[in-house]
Amino acid sequence: MTLNPQFQQIGETFVKQYYLIFDGDRDAREKIVNFYHADMSLMSFEGSQVQGAAMILEKVKALSFQKIQRAITTLDCQPTFDGGVLVNILGQLKMDDDPPHGFNQTFVLKPLGDSFFVQHDMFRLAIHNTVV
Amino acid sequence: MTLNPQFQQIGETFVKQYYLIFDGDRDAREKIVNFYHADMSLMSFEGSQVQGAAMILEKVKALSFQKIQRAITTLDCQPTFDGGVLVNILGQLKMDDDPPHGFNQTFVLKPLGDSFFVQHDMFRLAIHNTVV
Repeated sequence: MTLNPQFQQIGETFVKQYYLIFDGDRDAREKIVNFYHADMSLMSFEGSQVQGAAMILEKVKALSFQKIQRAITTLDCQPTFDGGVLVNILGQLKMDDDPPHGFNQTFVLKPLGDSFFVQHDMFRLAIHNTVV
Repeated sequence: MTLNPQFQQIGETFVKQYYLIFDGDRDAREKIVNFYHADMSLMSFEGSQVQGAAMILEKVKALSFQKIQRAITTLDCQPTFDGGVLVNILGQLKMDDDPPHGFNQTFVLKPLGDSFFVQHDMFRLAIHNTVV
């Protein structure tokens, strides 16, 4: 049981780096795969789930938008009991000329050597119909 | 590395049980504390973070609403590599006579004996101002 006292800074730095690549030049977007593990990474994207860097890369390559703008509303971090970090983000994004959407993304960062990889990644666009 | 093949069912059953208690009779709401561990549970509630069942119980007791209605929009589950489950929920809720709010809650369920406890819990109301 090792809580990393730097969990907040680790989470915030990761999120900044991750979206800098993801939201940057389209031709470089697939470099995002370097945050994932060959086997021990799981991604859920709009409910569709894949495992491992190769399949995650296919998901990323299939994203068709050219430009994305993003604003983070809240960023929560918790230390995990293996020295990693749980990160949860709420915000808004706008792809190309689409209207803005709310989005939610959850990451679990797992320590490996001197660094971390993304063990879990869940992404959802938030469509809020009034249902209650 | 043990992925539980029942992760989806475990996550869905947990969420149903959790909200049944949380959203039920106000006098019984504090029974929710039984899902948490005395020490190894972390809760972030609207950005405020506490550790352990006793402090989590204080948070729950401080919630002043009488009635809550909830509708789940999406529920994502991933197996964790220690046999647990990562659960992420987007939905809407309505407390007493307040207007409906979007909400997001993330849980990490950790195996313990024949059952699970909530190791991580992050809750946010989603206020989507148009910023991008």
